[in-house]
Amino acid sequence: MTETMKRIALAARPKGAPSLENFRLEEIPMPEPGDDEVLVRVLYLSLDPYMRGRMDDVKSYAAPVEIGATMEGGCVAEVIASNSPRLKPGDIVNGMFGWASHGVLPANQLRKVDPEVAPVSTAVGMLGMPGFTGWLGLNEYGRLKAGETLVVGAATGAVGSMVGQLAKIHGLRVVGVAGGADKCAFAVNDLGFDACIDHRAAPDAAALRQQLAAACPDGIDIYFENVGGKTLEAVLPQMNVAGRIPICGMIAWYDLGGLGLGGGDGKDQLPKAWRTILVRRLSVNGFIITDHYDRFPDFLKEVGGYLRDDRLHYREDIAVGLEAAPQAFLDMLKGGNFGKQLVKVGEL
Amino acid sequence: MTETMKRIALAARPKGAPSLENFRLEEIPMPEPGDDEVLVRVLYLSLDPYMRGRMDDVKSYAAPVEIGATMEGGCVAEVIASNSPRLKPGDIVNGMFGWASHGVLPANQLRKVDPEVAPVSTAVGMLGMPGFTGWLGLNEYGRLKAGETLVVGAATGAVGSMVGQLAKIHGLRVVGVAGGADKCAFAVNDLGFDACIDHRAAPDAAALRQQLAAACPDGIDIYFENVGGKTLEAVLPQMNVAGRIPICGMIAWYDLGGLGLGGGDGKDQLPKAWRTILVRRLSVNGFIITDHYDRFPDFLKEVGGYLRDDRLHYREDIAVGLEAAPQAFLDMLKGGNFGKQLVKVGEL
Repeated sequence: MTETMKRIALAARPKGAPSLENFRLEEIPMPEPGDDEVLVRVLYLSLDPYMRGRMDDVKSYAAPVEIGATMEGGCVAEVIASNSPRLKPGDIVNGMFGWASHGVLPANQLRKVDPEVAPVSTAVGMLGMPGFTGWLGLNEYGRLKAGETLVVGAATGAVGSMVGQLAKIHGLRVVGVAGGADKCAFAVNDLGFDACIDHRAAPDAAALRQQLAAACPDGIDIYFENVGGKTLEAVLPQMNVAGRIPICGMIAWYDLGGLGLGGGDGKDQLPKAWRTILVRRLSVNGFIITDHYDRFPDFLKEVGGYLRDDRLHYREDIAVGLEAAPQAFLDMLKGGNFGKQLVKVGEL
Repeated sequence: MTETMKRIALAARPKGAPSLENFRLEEIPMPEPGDDEVLVRVLYLSLDPYMRGRMDDVKSYAAPVEIGATMEGGCVAEVIASNSPRLKPGDIVNGMFGWASHGVLPANQLRKVDPEVAPVSTAVGMLGMPGFTGWLGLNEYGRLKAGETLVVGAATGAVGSMVGQLAKIHGLRVVGVAGGADKCAFAVNDLGFDACIDHRAAPDAAALRQQLAAACPDGIDIYFENVGGKTLEAVLPQMNVAGRIPICGMIAWYDLGGLGLGGGDGKDQLPKAWRTILVRRLSVNGFIITDHYDRFPDFLKEVGGYLRDDRLHYREDIAVGLEAAPQAFLDMLKGGNFGKQLVKVGEL
């Protein structure tokens, strides 16, 4: 009897918002590790908004997932067989095994995770790609200064939690935007944000803008952009002179696909945005975290320290079983998750 | 008999595109210089796109011109009476005397112009605010590197000419965009651009994009933004990873006013632009030249040298007589000028 593993493949490209039909659960033969490779069983799969982009066949910073291929994704996994002197069975690693129960990768593409620092799930959260995205973007492009005001969307997500709490550590006023009263309460009470605005309770950008204005009496110096849409529209007019906007994502607009044209209301928002960038002398910088991994050790050192000292809090939203991944992913894209979205694929 | 002077006042705020009715030529008593002030007669008035913004009553980086007040503007002028030890009659100065035949300002708000370096009209062109805008934006936010490709709109205007020629001096491939075959020929033959595309001959952004693609086989690394509109739309998809967009203006959109919403075609271009900034990791920086005058001496030293060595060329479009200013300004906003737009107000 041949051993098998499970994976979730991309069954079809979405037209607009993705649905369960775009995914397919498959059983395939268990792979065997070659020279310098290891075989792992996945413990946690991380679900992240960037995966939406990989489902479209458009030119982007990374190649799309091919139809029939395993959905891409970062995982925390346990080594169960190793042909590398660098890793041994029982080691916990972080690597891109995708939406799968098991996987094989060269040892040099894996990062060994120290279970003593923090729960291993943080290797794809606060101490992994999302946390690193927040840290890097804030330090490199946010150029944060004590006393300034920062706004971040998806405030209780993995990136937003990191950005807001780091900014608090550095003495900024931090205002989050999140979907729902429970998330906003968590951002203020558990993450220590100064305020958090429920965008679901704001009927439009104008209403959201009014609430932001009340929460940001000195205007906004840094807008850490990970959502786009209504939040961006509400934030832009309130940016202060010399403000900074690091852009790491825009989840509200992902379903627009490669064309990326919004509309329907007959208004082009680009001239207004461009004018604000000019007259407020804003610095707007897009960045892709994979360009910056040379700074990962610095991040790990600083943020690992904060975590050990209990200066950073976070919340995880854990779906159970690989087969739960597609629905959990679809929910996350609509903001249905509360905290970093994970899938528990195997027991530690 | 009291001596009088002429000025052009803002008669009414434009709704959309401005017209002659928005201006009024007036005769007013000749002012007298107070302590430390000088009286001048204006030789050249500079007409610049930023003046369009001053006609609207909207929050911007500078206060609007009040109804009934003199239109704002930079001038080259000759001192005819002085109560300051710093300047004497006959001295040539650069100052903000506005659309006027004469004016009074404190000597410390004036820059003395050396007629030996270059024709004095350049004090409001290549060696003045527009040239400085090109130099500063390119050096500070363009971060230019030899071998890269730069695109600039309004290529034969004061800013565009400076930007393109500086980039050529630094070893970049330079592609201009201008309105009309004569301007494009000038950009290539006289300014030394590698190519120049006539946006008037391109029916839409897609056509312009095709021509830009042909002229920029290695993509675009720097887009020096002073026009917005169709040119921006054509440039954005061709920006290379890590590209830079310094923004000093967007003349195509000025008539949108403070609301700044384009549209009518039911498409919002902002999501697409924002996505490009993200996936190409662009650095987009708005800047206002008045923030940067501490670097003016460096500019004057470097660019004055290029001018003396005949390494920078330029063209001036000179309307004669103060009363010609409004029509010349309206023409300029539509791209009717060919070269830096000046009004000759008085004989040297």
